[in-house]
Amino acid sequence: MGQPQQPEGAEGGKPPLGIGMVGYAFMGAAHSQGWRTAGRVFDLPLRPVLAAVCGRDGAAVRAAADRHGWAAAETDWRALIARDDVDLVDICTPGDSHAEIALAALAAGKHVLCEKPLANSVAEAQEMARAAEAAQERGQLAMVGFNYRRVPATALARRMVAEGRLGTLRHVRVTYLQDWLVDPGFPLTWRLRKESAGSGSLGDLGAHIVDLAQFLVGEPLAGVSALTETFVRERPLPAGATSGLSGAPTAGTGQVTVDDAALFTGRFASGALASFEATRYATGRKNALRIELNGEHGSLAFDLERLNELHYHDGTEPGTHAGFRRILVTEPDHPYLDAWWPPGHGLGYEHTFVHQARDLVHAVAEGSRPEPSFADGLQVQRVLAAVEESAEKNSVYTPVAV
Amino acid sequence: MGQPQQPEGAEGGKPPLGIGMVGYAFMGAAHSQGWRTAGRVFDLPLRPVLAAVCGRDGAAVRAAADRHGWAAAETDWRALIARDDVDLVDICTPGDSHAEIALAALAAGKHVLCEKPLANSVAEAQEMARAAEAAQERGQLAMVGFNYRRVPATALARRMVAEGRLGTLRHVRVTYLQDWLVDPGFPLTWRLRKESAGSGSLGDLGAHIVDLAQFLVGEPLAGVSALTETFVRERPLPAGATSGLSGAPTAGTGQVTVDDAALFTGRFASGALASFEATRYATGRKNALRIELNGEHGSLAFDLERLNELHYHDGTEPGTHAGFRRILVTEPDHPYLDAWWPPGHGLGYEHTFVHQARDLVHAVAEGSRPEPSFADGLQVQRVLAAVEESAEKNSVYTPVAV
Amino acid sequence: MGQPQQPEGAEGGKPPLGIGMVGYAFMGAAHSQGWRTAGRVFDLPLRPVLAAVCGRDGAAVRAAADRHGWAAAETDWRALIARDDVDLVDICTPGDSHAEIALAALAAGKHVLCEKPLANSVAEAQEMARAAEAAQERGQLAMVGFNYRRVPATALARRMVAEGRLGTLRHVRVTYLQDWLVDPGFPLTWRLRKESAGSGSLGDLGAHIVDLAQFLVGEPLAGVSALTETFVRERPLPAGATSGLSGAPTAGTGQVTVDDAALFTGRFASGALASFEATRYATGRKNALRIELNGEHGSLAFDLERLNELHYHDGTEPGTHAGFRRILVTEPDHPYLDAWWPPGHGLGYEHTFVHQARDLVHAVAEGSRPEPSFADGLQVQRVLAAVEESAEKNSVYTPVAV
Amino acid sequence: MGQPQQPEGAEGGKPPLGIGMVGYAFMGAAHSQGWRTAGRVFDLPLRPVLAAVCGRDGAAVRAAADRHGWAAAETDWRALIARDDVDLVDICTPGDSHAEIALAALAAGKHVLCEKPLANSVAEAQEMARAAEAAQERGQLAMVGFNYRRVPATALARRMVAEGRLGTLRHVRVTYLQDWLVDPGFPLTWRLRKESAGSGSLGDLGAHIVDLAQFLVGEPLAGVSALTETFVRERPLPAGATSGLSGAPTAGTGQVTVDDAALFTGRFASGALASFEATRYATGRKNALRIELNGEHGSLAFDLERLNELHYHDGTEPGTHAGFRRILVTEPDHPYLDAWWPPGHGLGYEHTFVHQARDLVHAVAEGSRPEPSFADGLQVQRVLAAVEESAEKNSVYTPVAV
Repeated sequence: MGQPQQPEGAEGGKPPLGIGMVGYAFMGAAHSQGWRTAGRVFDLPLRPVLAAVCGRDGAAVRAAADRHGWAAAETDWRALIARDDVDLVDICTPGDSHAEIALAALAAGKHVLCEKPLANSVAEAQEMARAAEAAQERGQLAMVGFNYRRVPATALARRMVAEGRLGTLRHVRVTYLQDWLVDPGFPLTWRLRKESAGSGSLGDLGAHIVDLAQFLVGEPLAGVSALTETFVRERPLPAGATSGLSGAPTAGTGQVTVDDAALFTGRFASGALASFEATRYATGRKNALRIELNGEHGSLAFDLERLNELHYHDGTEPGTHAGFRRILVTEPDHPYLDAWWPPGHGLGYEHTFVHQARDLVHAVAEGSRPEPSFADGLQVQRVLAAVEESAEKNSVYTPVAV
Repeated sequence: MGQPQQPEGAEGGKPPLGIGMVGYAFMGAAHSQGWRTAGRVFDLPLRPVLAAVCGRDGAAVRAAADRHGWAAAETDWRALIARDDVDLVDICTPGDSHAEIALAALAAGKHVLCEKPLANSVAEAQEMARAAEAAQERGQLAMVGFNYRRVPATALARRMVAEGRLGTLRHVRVTYLQDWLVDPGFPLTWRLRKESAGSGSLGDLGAHIVDLAQFLVGEPLAGVSALTETFVRERPLPAGATSGLSGAPTAGTGQVTVDDAALFTGRFASGALASFEATRYATGRKNALRIELNGEHGSLAFDLERLNELHYHDGTEPGTHAGFRRILVTEPDHPYLDAWWPPGHGLGYEHTFVHQARDLVHAVAEGSRPEPSFADGLQVQRVLAAVEESAEKNSVYTPVAV
Repeated sequence: MGQPQQPEGAEGGKPPLGIGMVGYAFMGAAHSQGWRTAGRVFDLPLRPVLAAVCGRDGAAVRAAADRHGWAAAETDWRALIARDDVDLVDICTPGDSHAEIALAALAAGKHVLCEKPLANSVAEAQEMARAAEAAQERGQLAMVGFNYRRVPATALARRMVAEGRLGTLRHVRVTYLQDWLVDPGFPLTWRLRKESAGSGSLGDLGAHIVDLAQFLVGEPLAGVSALTETFVRERPLPAGATSGLSGAPTAGTGQVTVDDAALFTGRFASGALASFEATRYATGRKNALRIELNGEHGSLAFDLERLNELHYHDGTEPGTHAGFRRILVTEPDHPYLDAWWPPGHGLGYEHTFVHQARDLVHAVAEGSRPEPSFADGLQVQRVLAAVEESAEKNSVYTPVAV
Repeated sequence: MGQPQQPEGAEGGKPPLGIGMVGYAFMGAAHSQGWRTAGRVFDLPLRPVLAAVCGRDGAAVRAAADRHGWAAAETDWRALIARDDVDLVDICTPGDSHAEIALAALAAGKHVLCEKPLANSVAEAQEMARAAEAAQERGQLAMVGFNYRRVPATALARRMVAEGRLGTLRHVRVTYLQDWLVDPGFPLTWRLRKESAGSGSLGDLGAHIVDLAQFLVGEPLAGVSALTETFVRERPLPAGATSGLSGAPTAGTGQVTVDDAALFTGRFASGALASFEATRYATGRKNALRIELNGEHGSLAFDLERLNELHYHDGTEPGTHAGFRRILVTEPDHPYLDAWWPPGHGLGYEHTFVHQARDLVHAVAEGSRPEPSFADGLQVQRVLAAVEESAEKNSVYTPVAV
């Protein structure tokens, strides 16, 4: 009776690209939406096929496959990688498993998309970047999921910086503010333990803003000076938590072993100064990834809570009529926008994953090098390591390793 | 070989609801996204199946079917309605064909979703509403596609009004501002001719804001006083236009026979005053559907260009700390939001169609009456007719027929 | 020798212009600030001297003189006009006394500044305009106090319209929203009685926005269609109210005999459409005089609650980088700004009165015709009369008398 | 008897407070406006008399006296201090002369108001604070002019923090962004030379935000980690510059010897983290002093470019209706507002000087200790010194001396 959503001769006429996804929680849902939608909106050279999804709990992963539209479900990621109908492995697990899965997938000849942060340590990230470099020469691609490069407004910002509209950059000012840890009664989840999460707001939010800042500026950070803090050091164990969490000073609570907030300043090689703040304690700020660039000839400002807007000040205009203008980034000649809706009809968060899927499919078809690469992910990891080192060493300015 | 996007035992285990869509342009693309996505994000009682899409140009409709994920393509809407695998007919054509298709679909025992405005005349809309009423008694549902009721922020606004948070309403202030006709060189498309489009900004934009205002207030407009205007009365014929357009005063141009802008004031039965403005000449405003409600106890303000926000002033608070607050409508207890992303991760325009599909599928499964009904669509039509009558009669206050 | 604030040889060296002010409440305080400050900030050709202030209650007017810096106090406005040291009479009383005082002052050879609205009726305003015209020929000036023309941002807006930056205007959208009558327990002050106030929100707020719109557009309104409403028709008598208020239906309350809100649409002769709303029931809006102009080549938007900003969309720019820009109207080449603070250091409400004083002093010294003239005030009065007539005649479109 | 602006029996009935001001440029103009206006708006216990102003250029100071309303002009600040009619010395000169003048004024038994920063070095500031402490015991007051404490919105913010509305503070985020040095052709004024200005953006803008942050938090910074930068190290000499500027590498240019920008992070003793940025290179930002406080129970945000607004998030409300609210700080129960205009009628930059004058006059009359005191000014100086030390020592975290 047919394939209701994949009719013969249609998108079906294009060569398939089989996707296998590991992990199906928040990120898995977002990536699924990206893979399902990219070929419906954009004219892609390959047809993404949601071949199989993988998770440890068999019943749960089958339910997730049904919900999100994956043809098969696996409970062993090695089995997923081994499937013939999987050409690309999409890793949506926590950071402590990224390296092992990505290395195995590359070794098995698959393309890889890996969620950020690339790894929980520089050493792991280095190994992954080396493996990706070797794989690229064999025609296998590896990309890291810094999806905020693919908001149309940030992509437009990058284009404008690259066009020279801002001139020499002086200041880069970035925050990523959330507030879900403000309540001291919020439980001690795996994200608050170093052994599982690697770090706290630094790796979660800080990784995003370091990548985005370097992407927009077009060069890496040279060095940083940092403060980190854990405001609430003991939290109730989550319901059903095993006693395996060490260091619980009293029955029913456990120690937070990651940072709650990270502040750092830094320098770009070309001389721009930067400030960064990542926190989960900014009451009332839900997803305030804000970035402002000030250059000799202009400035740009973006706020993820209003993601369809880019604010631009053209410093070359006469001051009489100059001002920050709100560009509604929904015009056909804005990045990604020719495929979507008429001007003024905004996009949302999940569209970044559609764009990510679009760009990766194009790169696979063309054999080009995807961005952000694992090398870019490694570079972010090095910045995070320098932040941690500076914070441990009394905030002393710490160069980022090259 | 399997159904890559509809695995056995998955969503596939639910009873199917076969969708047949007529028209596949802008609205068709948006509706397709709604039907494809609703069951992936929400836990629906039925499984929407994109059975067939219909259009006059065989090659084009087959390409659209492939692109948007429809299993089959038809070139005759009567054939589409006749298909056994079509349970619900989704009408995305221009307004002059709504009545005929909707009446035939209802007569054929199908559920109907019809794009707005419901029809190009009150007479047609009346017939449609009568047919829908009869069909409802047979268990067939009919809904009109005023999708802006299903922005989470507007749905929250309605909930807050219904909870009495604003008290007696005093003012309703609504605009829908676009700017795509500012350039006098923009061609004379079908939207600018009365015989095809019925009216101009009034039926296109005005219908949306009349419905939204009545929905939020919870009662119909009692009467209106109106001005309409056509600023640019002659425009170049579109490339490839046939000579069929009458009234072209010079070679290569033709007359605009619909309104460019419509302004009207009005009264709600309970005493609130309202003002409306619909225009395609508001330079720089791309999709500025803005509505503000002022009540005895509070106020609400919404702007479609920032659709994840609702601004609320609680007038019962001490003035010292009172002010319009920006509610980021992305919390789990906001309408539709429990199924989407974490707080602060915004939605876009197309999500209104996902929500519309969700709500209609629930209504079909439960046999309940969907909103907005064809009766609601008729009521909007009556307001538009009163607007036109008032504009013709020197703006005299004109009651809306009941 | 003891003129602490007027040292010899200083501003004192300039010829004096003696000011006599009638009324010393809210407007009197604002005008006093204007007269005291204008010569301190701007380089004026004449030295404003605060000669005398007038009010009916001797003790109160003496206290006001002391507070606001007036050299003498009078209790009879005819005596004030008769003073030799008074060259210019500044009328800050309620509207029902404007005509009598202004006519007497002009007859006595004085310049006149009269608060808005010019009068409580067209007939009075006509007589005043005729008298002003005759006086102008004798070298006496008469100006009406529409101070919102002298916010730097509105003055800049006018300059930009006059420069042709907006091209042919299509839409003028104006509201003046306040909320101080929302509480039905607010007492029945003189402002809510027709015999004293002339009208309600229409004369108070509506007069401002009609003048501002006509000023910005640069031409008069041709006609209007209007709705007015009194939401709360009975209010408690103010503490200490005499029994003189007629029509009190129950002990302790009285009837509101003016409009609470006025909505009207209209047309400018050149074809632009306009909408106006004036209300004291917009909960949470404190002083929201907002105006937006949409023209063929650009748009401007202003909000009195953020009076240092003008928002400008340049429609001639490529859409890629276009958007409404926030001009911070604090640059040295913005109107009035060369005399104030560095860029970004904003002004406030009262500065409009300083600018009004500045411009009037210049006009007196130069013998030029001040703007807005009494003729401008009369024109506003005619619009208000047309609004009232339309509201009484079922909103029918009513031409503004010329 | 002819004091046009100071009538007998009026404000004149109050005991006078003779003011003598040193310096009459930008700050002198602002202070003059404050002294002239305070007693006209507020009901003060003493009557400020603008007795004499002092500057080195006799003709210029006499013109300034005339313009700004000072009764006499002096060319020697020691003469000014010696005048019997001067009770309070107001120091508006550059920082390098503050200490000498303030110490002499205190020694002469005068009250002192000294512009910020208190001095160009900690040593000077220490001496001044010691002298002020001794003077306070003799009934002489000393205040430093951190005027931004007296914006109604910041004063309201302090009140809300003190009331505990924010709970334990987690984050303090402050920037002061200007852009007047973006053009490398801007000349090498005295503000860009260390010998005259002490420091660059740090002492000018940084001093303001350090004071404001400490004022709002209610405790001093414990330590800082800093980066500073001079982006443009050589600039053209100003027209008419003497050759006295050393280090000019080429004819016609000279070296910038102060910082262009300063970034620093820090900790408050109670555990809150803070970040600061002061720069003159933020293209398009004219006076963007922005501060945000995030506490366990709420957040506050302020922007000097919109100085009539305070944004408040009440974290104790249910998330459903919570959001940052825009408080228009123009209500009668807001700080300083009972004496000004009706709600929604905003104030401007210069009002901070009126409020400063008001508060100081009250303190003098009551013999209380004014805030900010010289001790507060010294504390700010110590923070600036710690910033410079950290910047010199590779950003190492540097405790602020106590």
